[in-house]
Amino acid sequence: MITHPAFSCAPWNLTETELNLDVLPQSESVFALSNGHVGWRGNLDEGEPHGLPGTYLNGLHELRRLPYAEAGYGYPESGQSVINVTNGKVLRLLVDDEPFDLRYGQLHHHERVLDFRTGLLHRTAEWTSPAGRRVRLRSTRLVSLTQRAIAALRWEIEPVDEPVQVVVQSELIANEQMPGGEGDPRAASSVDDPLESQEHHADGTSLRLIHRTRHSGLLVAAAAGHRVQGPTGTQTHADSSADLARFTVVGRLEPGQRLCVDKTVAYGWSGARSRPAVRDQVDAALAAGERTGWQGLVDEQRAYLDDFWDRSDVEVEGDPEVQQAVRFALFHVLQAGARAEERAIAAKGLTGSGYDGHSFWDTEGFVLPMLTYTAPLTVAHALRWRHSTLPAARDRARQLGLRGATFPWRTIAGEECSAYWPAGTAAFHINAAVADAVIRYTHATGDTAFERDIGLELLVETARMWASLGHHDHDGVFHIDGVTGPDEYSAVCDDNTYTNLMAQANLRAAADCAEHHQEIARGLGVDHDETEQWRAAADGMAVPYDKRLEVHEQAVGYTGHAEWDFDNTGPDDYPLMLHYPYFDLYRKQVIKQADLVLAMFVRGEAFTAEQKARNFEYYERITVRDSSLSACCQAVLAAETGHLGLAYDYLGEAATMDLLDLEHNTRDGLHIASLAGTWIALVSGFGGMRSDGGELRFAPRLPPEITRLAFRVTVLGSRLHVEVTRNEARYSLDDGDDSLTVRHFGRRLTVAPGRPAVRTLPDLPLRPAPQQPPGRAPHHRTPAVKDD
Amino acid sequence: MITHPAFSCAPWNLTETELNLDVLPQSESVFALSNGHVGWRGNLDEGEPHGLPGTYLNGLHELRRLPYAEAGYGYPESGQSVINVTNGKVLRLLVDDEPFDLRYGQLHHHERVLDFRTGLLHRTAEWTSPAGRRVRLRSTRLVSLTQRAIAALRWEIEPVDEPVQVVVQSELIANEQMPGGEGDPRAASSVDDPLESQEHHADGTSLRLIHRTRHSGLLVAAAAGHRVQGPTGTQTHADSSADLARFTVVGRLEPGQRLCVDKTVAYGWSGARSRPAVRDQVDAALAAGERTGWQGLVDEQRAYLDDFWDRSDVEVEGDPEVQQAVRFALFHVLQAGARAEERAIAAKGLTGSGYDGHSFWDTEGFVLPMLTYTAPLTVAHALRWRHSTLPAARDRARQLGLRGATFPWRTIAGEECSAYWPAGTAAFHINAAVADAVIRYTHATGDTAFERDIGLELLVETARMWASLGHHDHDGVFHIDGVTGPDEYSAVCDDNTYTNLMAQANLRAAADCAEHHQEIARGLGVDHDETEQWRAAADGMAVPYDKRLEVHEQAVGYTGHAEWDFDNTGPDDYPLMLHYPYFDLYRKQVIKQADLVLAMFVRGEAFTAEQKARNFEYYERITVRDSSLSACCQAVLAAETGHLGLAYDYLGEAATMDLLDLEHNTRDGLHIASLAGTWIALVSGFGGMRSDGGELRFAPRLPPEITRLAFRVTVLGSRLHVEVTRNEARYSLDDGDDSLTVRHFGRRLTVAPGRPAVRTLPDLPLRPAPQQPPGRAPHHRTPAVKDD
Repeated sequence: MITHPAFSCAPWNLTETELNLDVLPQSESVFALSNGHVGWRGNLDEGEPHGLPGTYLNGLHELRRLPYAEAGYGYPESGQSVINVTNGKVLRLLVDDEPFDLRYGQLHHHERVLDFRTGLLHRTAEWTSPAGRRVRLRSTRLVSLTQRAIAALRWEIEPVDEPVQVVVQSELIANEQMPGGEGDPRAASSVDDPLESQEHHADGTSLRLIHRTRHSGLLVAAAAGHRVQGPTGTQTHADSSADLARFTVVGRLEPGQRLCVDKTVAYGWSGARSRPAVRDQVDAALAAGERTGWQGLVDEQRAYLDDFWDRSDVEVEGDPEVQQAVRFALFHVLQAGARAEERAIAAKGLTGSGYDGHSFWDTEGFVLPMLTYTAPLTVAHALRWRHSTLPAARDRARQLGLRGATFPWRTIAGEECSAYWPAGTAAFHINAAVADAVIRYTHATGDTAFERDIGLELLVETARMWASLGHHDHDGVFHIDGVTGPDEYSAVCDDNTYTNLMAQANLRAAADCAEHHQEIARGLGVDHDETEQWRAAADGMAVPYDKRLEVHEQAVGYTGHAEWDFDNTGPDDYPLMLHYPYFDLYRKQVIKQADLVLAMFVRGEAFTAEQKARNFEYYERITVRDSSLSACCQAVLAAETGHLGLAYDYLGEAATMDLLDLEHNTRDGLHIASLAGTWIALVSGFGGMRSDGGELRFAPRLPPEITRLAFRVTVLGSRLHVEVTRNEARYSLDDGDDSLTVRHFGRRLTVAPGRPAVRTLPDLPLRPAPQQPPGRAPHHRTPAVKDD
Repeated sequence: MITHPAFSCAPWNLTETELNLDVLPQSESVFALSNGHVGWRGNLDEGEPHGLPGTYLNGLHELRRLPYAEAGYGYPESGQSVINVTNGKVLRLLVDDEPFDLRYGQLHHHERVLDFRTGLLHRTAEWTSPAGRRVRLRSTRLVSLTQRAIAALRWEIEPVDEPVQVVVQSELIANEQMPGGEGDPRAASSVDDPLESQEHHADGTSLRLIHRTRHSGLLVAAAAGHRVQGPTGTQTHADSSADLARFTVVGRLEPGQRLCVDKTVAYGWSGARSRPAVRDQVDAALAAGERTGWQGLVDEQRAYLDDFWDRSDVEVEGDPEVQQAVRFALFHVLQAGARAEERAIAAKGLTGSGYDGHSFWDTEGFVLPMLTYTAPLTVAHALRWRHSTLPAARDRARQLGLRGATFPWRTIAGEECSAYWPAGTAAFHINAAVADAVIRYTHATGDTAFERDIGLELLVETARMWASLGHHDHDGVFHIDGVTGPDEYSAVCDDNTYTNLMAQANLRAAADCAEHHQEIARGLGVDHDETEQWRAAADGMAVPYDKRLEVHEQAVGYTGHAEWDFDNTGPDDYPLMLHYPYFDLYRKQVIKQADLVLAMFVRGEAFTAEQKARNFEYYERITVRDSSLSACCQAVLAAETGHLGLAYDYLGEAATMDLLDLEHNTRDGLHIASLAGTWIALVSGFGGMRSDGGELRFAPRLPPEITRLAFRVTVLGSRLHVEVTRNEARYSLDDGDDSLTVRHFGRRLTVAPGRPAVRTLPDLPLRPAPQQPPGRAPHHRTPAVKDD
């Protein structure tokens, strides 16, 4: 049992067995459906009560002025915010003369099931109205992974004991009233009534609303079609006004009779096309969706997901909660990216409006690594989106006095929307994360067309940025000063080790790639001098090291800073950024999230095993994990340095971040990168998978709690199965795949189809357990006794 | 001739010989009158045209919400802004039926004279109305230095050739419409209609308006009384409404006849007292002012200023512009502080609304050093104001996790109003500036009552802050990390040398003073352990030094940073902060204003002469002087290191900052600290006066352009005259003063009344001239041939 009172543990679904209105906003995030293009939060069909109504279209945003009490040159003036668009989920119900509203009457039963294999969200409820009418309601919804503009639902009602008259209002509703914010900076900025009506239409079983965003000027259209099955005498009609289109069904149901409404909803938006074009687009999508029909959409969804699970499933024996969690994670990360198609994958996917719907470095840093090996096409799309924002990134670089391109710390459409530069603009490492994602993707797929058309230019433009951002000192050492690394409890430092090592890899990859595609590189203005300059910067890159303590420094001077006063920091003082000023956090040794530890993961070959062990122990003492991005990285390094129990606990934290709402903001949407982190903790942690340097390497080791770990990764078109048990690892390929060379604990091995390679696991050097700051050790989990 | 087209050069006044509407806002600042309590900008009597209407009461402010696009813990939520209060300067004039407005008709003559000896602003104008009526107008105004609530003016009109009918409307006007801002962050935030009417009154010759500020809830009262002299038949009446009280004079003047209006204006405000109390206060002040009468006020003003000049005049032979400028500076700095009386001395004094009327570190760092030796009582008052804000400063320290008190970077009433913490909160050096002002004042005055009641607690609370802000490393070295020094093109650095040296002096002075006043110190909770802790921190203080370059570092790592690309920085790119992002400025070697150079001035004994010379040359190359606080400090160190020509040019820049509007923002008010810098450049630069360490030391040296420099400083109640010529210095005391021991080029000498000490000046070691960044050398001045 996962400890959420109403979530039950099962390997292939997430089931909520009773409705708890207190956690409604969280459950709306957890039960969100999305295909990366359209997102529907798990709001109740009847619209209310709700935590946060949410219908999102990837890329659709409104602009808002960013205010500054003290302005500065280069501060972004305009922010972009995701908005809640036309809600097509709503089917309101009147039972006799009383609205179906779970806050009133008596709820006998309520269950919601998110099925990871079918991609459907099921709901069943049995309820007695305040006037004593008992009904049974069942609904199933999907956001289609195969028809990206389409979401659909099947909704059914039946009386339990007495006949009832029912009125069903299936709606498209725009400009829903939003609940007020609570001042948490991680939440969204609210934009009131963002949509201006352009036209509304209702006819027969069809509804359509077209709006325009007020400031960003984007057209958004929603259309819905209906199919009703009910007793003879059931009547329907449709009407519309500016912000509401409504299809009404009125009928009388005897016990044993059922009213069923199938609703297909299509969405479209554009900043370029005309209203007629957008209208036609959404009508065409609806026509296709309706032709496929409910069962057709359900079947397509299952087929899509069967393929995904076949390529990507992770099996965890011995820990049913983690088994559930990793599939929950795989499912939601897939949903975030599946059909994003040259739009950003946001930090919250399309599950909530947290962080204003912005995309950050964690997409390239955490989400794409997982997708590279599980759904590589989505990665190509995500990086094509980055590539499409190069004009804005070049402008930004120019504004900042740099060459090449500077990608924004947070954005929807490509322009920098970060209003606090020390933790935004200064976090240049996002550019290296983009390059890293390019390198990983091209290595993992061999997609040379992508490398030529997209990858090379991304590498070149980021390399140019690094070369102009840093400088050589009198000894030739290359320094990158005044930047912020991943750890947001430090900022504007010199020679952040993570940044420097990532920039080094970026510079080298750009030089290699440019030499590999000389003609195209010349077209980008790259010559030999420039690649030599990149190599010189990479070769001279400063990597700060404290000789006295024999540890790497997170940044120059870091280990000389005062240590945080953990003894006088109480449990309620976390997350620290809500209780201490940045000035104090920045100048002391206290770490929000893996930074040097992340460097040891993604640039592992830059460190010896002994350095990794010493560094990990040093930074464990001061890392508080106030970011959801930390636990998975710590899990990986804990596993690598032999602290398997600790790694297991960090895995547990990453795995339950949203299911247990560990950061108390799941209401705003899921932590997509942390979900990907669950996969990372398993595959790179206990599977020991690494890809830096271009070779796929494994060094698997299981903690006592996990008896078997099996995962599949797609590499160069082949499906590599890795199965790890206590003492050995088994590498195998699907029939028909090309053979593949990987490393097992440093030794090269070749896997051919039908000829699995089995290797034993070497003994583990024992080291004393590292300490965490008081009260900040990860929760130690004891897994449930047996799988369901 | 000062190069402003209409300012003429004279030793004791500033005269504008014609009216140039383009520079009206600047001239309003330059001609502002103030006593530190009430401030009247030099707006024309008739109200319009104006650049920026300005009437200020020290401490009176409105609150405004400080907006943050991304909020953070400890960010101030409420800002304080000085507001333009009830304008009592206005006397509108109707000549026949046409308003006297210099934008129309023909202006034959217009002259304004600010007389430094009398403290009066004179104006004469001769004008022909569009309808051909020619009049001669004369007005004189003062803001009383002896009656702090009182401002007054005498206003006269006479026809030149034909009889005219005149209507004079003498007003009190509230909520004047303000011109729109231009987005310069150094200007003020405008607050529209800040005043809510409480009552209005007009009776006979008296007017009174009482208002309340909308959010800060402060009562402000203005009253005016009139005395009219005119031909028989001249009529008067008074009327009032919410925002306007008006005394109207109607008369007919034959050529040779004159209408004269004496207007006395009284102001009062309070956040604590009731409306009747404030009403009585302002009526009483007006009664006293009217009883003194115009001539009485003029006489008092002259007597006050005679005493001031007698104690404080600086004579500069060979350079009439600097002669004028230093008296202009002395006069305005005196105006800013004379009657501030436990209110802040703002960066702009009461001459404009720039910087929102806030007070910064430059009050203690630049203004109080000058006032300590010229008007020491004002310093005691200013520091009593700081002391009165200790509760807010202790709260702020607590919020920041520090002990003791943290004074705000910018404030009116004591609360932190800085919305950009890297250049606000992080600039902890303001606390050391407060301590330094205490140390200087007590040394210079021997005011032990102040030391006991005020000084000790200020030293103790700031020392506590430093002790908790810094930390000892494993070698015992004391580091202060993550703070911002005076140079605002760096921020959030470790071990800023200036800050560390100032903190060191602060810690030692606190320990000394606590040991000197043990009982009171015990009452403040100071014990032996604490003073030992302060001494240990001071003794272990880190002072970063680059052994390779043999220069001190502005902060740790500073000299390793990339150098600013001066070659690609054009003249229009200055000030850099308006054309480059902070991120770029912060991480490169480019300096806005003296920082290490300032440390060498105020903590000169911490450096050898050779270090000073090398350091000065190193930092000259990278200092762009985008702050008005820089030139005077560079003048001092240039003089000390033997670059007398350069020092002379820096003196010229400091001296003409406002008279030539070098920073293009004199419209927002005068740079009071830079004005004090003119005095500093002369007295500490060419006079070589230093007081750090407690002894008064002189090392005078004149540049070729200045043939004689004489200045007077008040020390321990005595008036020390210092007269410097080419080859010798003469130290003398007024009769009756106690004898005084000072140092001349390191050698002790005692001056007794009537027995001047004359000493020769040692030869100067010659060094090559330092270089400034291209285009940033100070303007080389050639002084006017002879004094007027």
